[in-house]
Amino acid sequence: MRTPLGAIAVLFLSAIAVAQSQPQLNLMPMPASVQTGTGQLAIDRSFSVAVTGVHDASLDREIQRFKTQLSRQTGISFWPKADATPTLTVHADHGREAGQRLGEDESYELTVTDSNALLQAATALGAIRGLQTFLQLVQITPAGFAVPMVTIKDQPRFPWRGLLIDVSRHFIPLDVLKRNLDGMAAVKMNVLHWHLSDDQGFRVESKQFPKLTGMGSEGMFYTQEEIRDFISYAHDRGIRVIPEFDMPGHSRSWFVGYPKLSSGAGPYTLDGDGIEPITDPTREETYKFLEKFIAEMAKLFPDQYFHIGGDEVDGKQWDANPKIQEFKRTHGMKNNQDLQAYFNQRLQKIVAKNHKIMVGWDEILHPDLPKSIVVQSWRGQASLAMAAKQGYSGLLSYGYYVDLMWPASRHYAVDPMAQTTTDAAATLTPEEKSRILGGESCMWAEWVTPENIDSHIWPRNAAIAERLWSPQSVADVASMYTRMNAVSLNLEWLRLMHRSAREPMLQRMAGDADLSALRVLADVVEPVKDYNRWDDARGPIDFHAPLNRMIDGVYPESDVARQFNDLVHTFSQSGYKDQAAEMQIRNWLTLWRDNDAKLNPLLSQSLLLRDDVTLSQNLSALGTAGLQALDYIDKSQAPPDSWKTQQFALIAQAAKRSDDLLLMVAAPVQQLVEASAGATQH
Amino acid sequence: MRTPLGAIAVLFLSAIAVAQSQPQLNLMPMPASVQTGTGQLAIDRSFSVAVTGVHDASLDREIQRFKTQLSRQTGISFWPKADATPTLTVHADHGREAGQRLGEDESYELTVTDSNALLQAATALGAIRGLQTFLQLVQITPAGFAVPMVTIKDQPRFPWRGLLIDVSRHFIPLDVLKRNLDGMAAVKMNVLHWHLSDDQGFRVESKQFPKLTGMGSEGMFYTQEEIRDFISYAHDRGIRVIPEFDMPGHSRSWFVGYPKLSSGAGPYTLDGDGIEPITDPTREETYKFLEKFIAEMAKLFPDQYFHIGGDEVDGKQWDANPKIQEFKRTHGMKNNQDLQAYFNQRLQKIVAKNHKIMVGWDEILHPDLPKSIVVQSWRGQASLAMAAKQGYSGLLSYGYYVDLMWPASRHYAVDPMAQTTTDAAATLTPEEKSRILGGESCMWAEWVTPENIDSHIWPRNAAIAERLWSPQSVADVASMYTRMNAVSLNLEWLRLMHRSAREPMLQRMAGDADLSALRVLADVVEPVKDYNRWDDARGPIDFHAPLNRMIDGVYPESDVARQFNDLVHTFSQSGYKDQAAEMQIRNWLTLWRDNDAKLNPLLSQSLLLRDDVTLSQNLSALGTAGLQALDYIDKSQAPPDSWKTQQFALIAQAAKRSDDLLLMVAAPVQQLVEASAGATQH
Repeated sequence: MRTPLGAIAVLFLSAIAVAQSQPQLNLMPMPASVQTGTGQLAIDRSFSVAVTGVHDASLDREIQRFKTQLSRQTGISFWPKADATPTLTVHADHGREAGQRLGEDESYELTVTDSNALLQAATALGAIRGLQTFLQLVQITPAGFAVPMVTIKDQPRFPWRGLLIDVSRHFIPLDVLKRNLDGMAAVKMNVLHWHLSDDQGFRVESKQFPKLTGMGSEGMFYTQEEIRDFISYAHDRGIRVIPEFDMPGHSRSWFVGYPKLSSGAGPYTLDGDGIEPITDPTREETYKFLEKFIAEMAKLFPDQYFHIGGDEVDGKQWDANPKIQEFKRTHGMKNNQDLQAYFNQRLQKIVAKNHKIMVGWDEILHPDLPKSIVVQSWRGQASLAMAAKQGYSGLLSYGYYVDLMWPASRHYAVDPMAQTTTDAAATLTPEEKSRILGGESCMWAEWVTPENIDSHIWPRNAAIAERLWSPQSVADVASMYTRMNAVSLNLEWLRLMHRSAREPMLQRMAGDADLSALRVLADVVEPVKDYNRWDDARGPIDFHAPLNRMIDGVYPESDVARQFNDLVHTFSQSGYKDQAAEMQIRNWLTLWRDNDAKLNPLLSQSLLLRDDVTLSQNLSALGTAGLQALDYIDKSQAPPDSWKTQQFALIAQAAKRSDDLLLMVAAPVQQLVEASAGATQH
Repeated sequence: MRTPLGAIAVLFLSAIAVAQSQPQLNLMPMPASVQTGTGQLAIDRSFSVAVTGVHDASLDREIQRFKTQLSRQTGISFWPKADATPTLTVHADHGREAGQRLGEDESYELTVTDSNALLQAATALGAIRGLQTFLQLVQITPAGFAVPMVTIKDQPRFPWRGLLIDVSRHFIPLDVLKRNLDGMAAVKMNVLHWHLSDDQGFRVESKQFPKLTGMGSEGMFYTQEEIRDFISYAHDRGIRVIPEFDMPGHSRSWFVGYPKLSSGAGPYTLDGDGIEPITDPTREETYKFLEKFIAEMAKLFPDQYFHIGGDEVDGKQWDANPKIQEFKRTHGMKNNQDLQAYFNQRLQKIVAKNHKIMVGWDEILHPDLPKSIVVQSWRGQASLAMAAKQGYSGLLSYGYYVDLMWPASRHYAVDPMAQTTTDAAATLTPEEKSRILGGESCMWAEWVTPENIDSHIWPRNAAIAERLWSPQSVADVASMYTRMNAVSLNLEWLRLMHRSAREPMLQRMAGDADLSALRVLADVVEPVKDYNRWDDARGPIDFHAPLNRMIDGVYPESDVARQFNDLVHTFSQSGYKDQAAEMQIRNWLTLWRDNDAKLNPLLSQSLLLRDDVTLSQNLSALGTAGLQALDYIDKSQAPPDSWKTQQFALIAQAAKRSDDLLLMVAAPVQQLVEASAGATQH
């Protein structure tokens, strides 16, 4: 029988939480300049918006969405009186352009008094950014909903602030992408980099080459009509859409329908067989195909930039093909890099003929390519700076891969223009620096589905968005986490599921059993980091396998573990004397110690949970170890060496991955055990 | 600063929950006949469905939805091998009819072995019902997802199992209605009664009379194209759509655009002014209007039944109009009931001319009306039985008003054919009984919005659905709650928000503060019952007011209070000796006692919560009182009379409504205090 009794929150655990800080503005990204006042502007049902300046249909739609969003946030439907003074006046000098340009003016000024607000921008695009700031300013107060008095002057640090979404490895439907566009707009990102083809699927309808999706998508693709609608949806939100068609590698899906494009014999299926097929750059038919294909896609995607991938070319098929080897010899090419550069040069001419600027990953950088191309770096700032020195424009993605399951703070610390003198960017001239256009977070989709992709992007992506928009000096991690949590809550009103999807996923694993004990475990684990979920020893990834286990449902970053870490730090800083902190640490440890007894019966009842038995036992063991350590600390009594040895072994065991998950509270418990060893000294 | 520390569940509270009962089938409504076996049919990614028998496009679409739904429930995408034996074979002898008829065969047989399943039905409609049963049978097991071996033979008890949704008082968009249709189909309801017009808004586009929505809807209405799409959506799910245009009362919205239809002088606005305008039944122009209007609507809504309302006619405008008084005298009418009967007769002829059967509320029952009409009773079974005796068909809605905030058990106990000998239905002949077609739950929309309407319908509506589908003997309340909880979880996969909407609504009230303490309070309160949220002394209801307070976010029925009640009952049944039960009771009481100290600071920070200060204090007081009572019980020591007097006064205070909410744990705490008074006796 299902019991709701466990669905209650543990109050004793939150009682001694970190003290509420002073009211602050929960803005993310933080604007370039913020001056706060002391009053507030009430938001009630008389709220109204007036538009002065240019008339722009896209801005009008944004204001409609803004009002819908404000209604959701507040639960208020607006019924302003016909002749009332507008609450918010929006003024833009210039309307939207048909195509959004890189570097288009996104600045705005927002002034809020206790009687009204004025949003001014040179462009409608700037006004769109400012409206999102206004939404973040709305808060509940004792007097109702209100926006604090404030003057904000804001503009972005970098003109290119993107999110890459891979829709090849797992197909992501448009409704999910659209709500992520809404999220991007909320944090002022302006580029969706749409990774539309890879080995596992080709996702765009081509009328020229219908077998691309007909044989290479398992029926999961976007029609051209859908894509036009999607681009228009993005444009309304001030977001450019850049398509990526990855070649010559990462392109098995092309070859299922068109095997002659490949450097091998074929035939191919979407399922990997260990050999990575790549495009044959030596046949003229390849370029005839690409001429037609790129012309079609260049029309479909209006943005000025066109991404051709170019990463991770596994040259085995080239090496194995005598004709290709012969071609290399004939053309005096030393290696496969030269061959890829040849391919890229040909490709770049086709892209340029279609009035597009070619973008590609690090590997496309080659002296034979013109300076007009843009290099997207997954290798790091040094690589980016080197490109800038050579005259190439670049984007940083290194450090922004959200599929690596890093904490937000780690992404946040990565700056496209790293500050330290040892960093390459420090040696750049201003002109060279201006070639660093910004960056992109990357959501590679090996391990996400429409169900959990939101939680793999959000809220961490908001921290990356801030890094790319806000002044470089905005770097306080504690402030970032506070504001990111507030923004995360606000993003829910956009129907993003980054928080809410976990509960039904856990319920699916647990059947109709009570979830309390499972939540306790889920709250302190994180997926393994980097690309450690899979290794080649396991064979190729099975992209049809269900993603319905614990690792798929939990959040990439554990807030509970971070807070517990902070608590132990506070306790340590006090010389292990802060009793309030200790009480709270004890409460957590007790919860964990006792959890396995409750959770264990459930784990054995579900195939989806039975591999988490060790994890649950380890959490309990950590709880016990931590409590014993506190006892030694309290008694100022050094524990016996045998105990310490035993605890360190146990903690080392608990820190190991189990069911592809990591117990994130092993380290702070270790800290307590270490502290207890020195307990006689204080 | 927001802390996640409170987001953890209280394990110690759930530890001693009611013991897990034997695995059971979480079916709702319970089928007419269920025979269980001992094996199970695995549901894995090779799952496939074959269709034999009739080819039917509607059934094909249902099977597609079925597979989507099964994928959501399990997290598995299905990739059956091309030549594999189908897991489930669906066989229907006859396809869907263009229009679904009352009484159409909905029976099916479902046989599940450990190797495959067979669903057989005379009609595709029956197969649609059986597929929903299959979805409910899927559960997670140690071996993965599976359906237990079972043989089910099933058919409904009543042919008319409806849900009324009022979209006039608060407009409900089609996406919200559609997910509710999905929910209805999941519990085998087959009629959506669409209350499309009332004083507060006229919601259907009329091309004949565009001012109905042009002036009477505030722009919130459905176009005819949307309605056709919606009806087709419902038809696919085996749901008939019956429109209701309420007249001659409840029709202010008509008169805003067409004041001459009314019995007063007008002009009218949608805002009430205390006087209820009603249709003028004495002018021939009224009938000319209705001839045209009903002809248009009869085409738009294909169902054979057409609801004209007819309830709660406030005759003041008739009484005040000399011409209407003169008409009554001329026609020998004794009272306004006679005048309404005259109107209904005229109306019935128009409805019949359009080949429809007229349905109306209790009040339309009048000897002058033909026996072909259907009476929907909000007055009760006696009224329904009386109509059946007179030859009228009828539907029960009394007892099924979900807006009254009753617990599911109370709705569940209401049977259209009440069993007791004193009940009117007991005296009916079989033929008369057959005139009782079923019933309808009613979601009147004074206090719901698109945001919280799901939670006001679900899961309680599933209990009503069972009452109308399952054999009368299916009546065990504990079983009902267990199964209703399981079905409630399953309904989430249909995107219904009945559970998930509460969290963001509470967060809106709390700003970005931690919600733990607020959840504890929200878990034990219910909205005031019946129509006690509002009384006339407060003036007319303001339908533009935000519905964003505690009462709007909490569930109509508190699971925690019900479980706590059960715990106290268990403790009492043990002669107050069951230590496990007592421990758990103590844990709850301690949680509540300590809650106000944590919650109080938050309440004062939000306009939306500041009226809940008393409620929170009262909950703490109940916790203290209950704990003291337990101490007396434990010590077998009678408390002093002064203490008892004080506690009873305090409990009486806590049981009173506060901010339109009721603390549902006052009664069990009172029981503990009463028990402590007799503590010396055991």
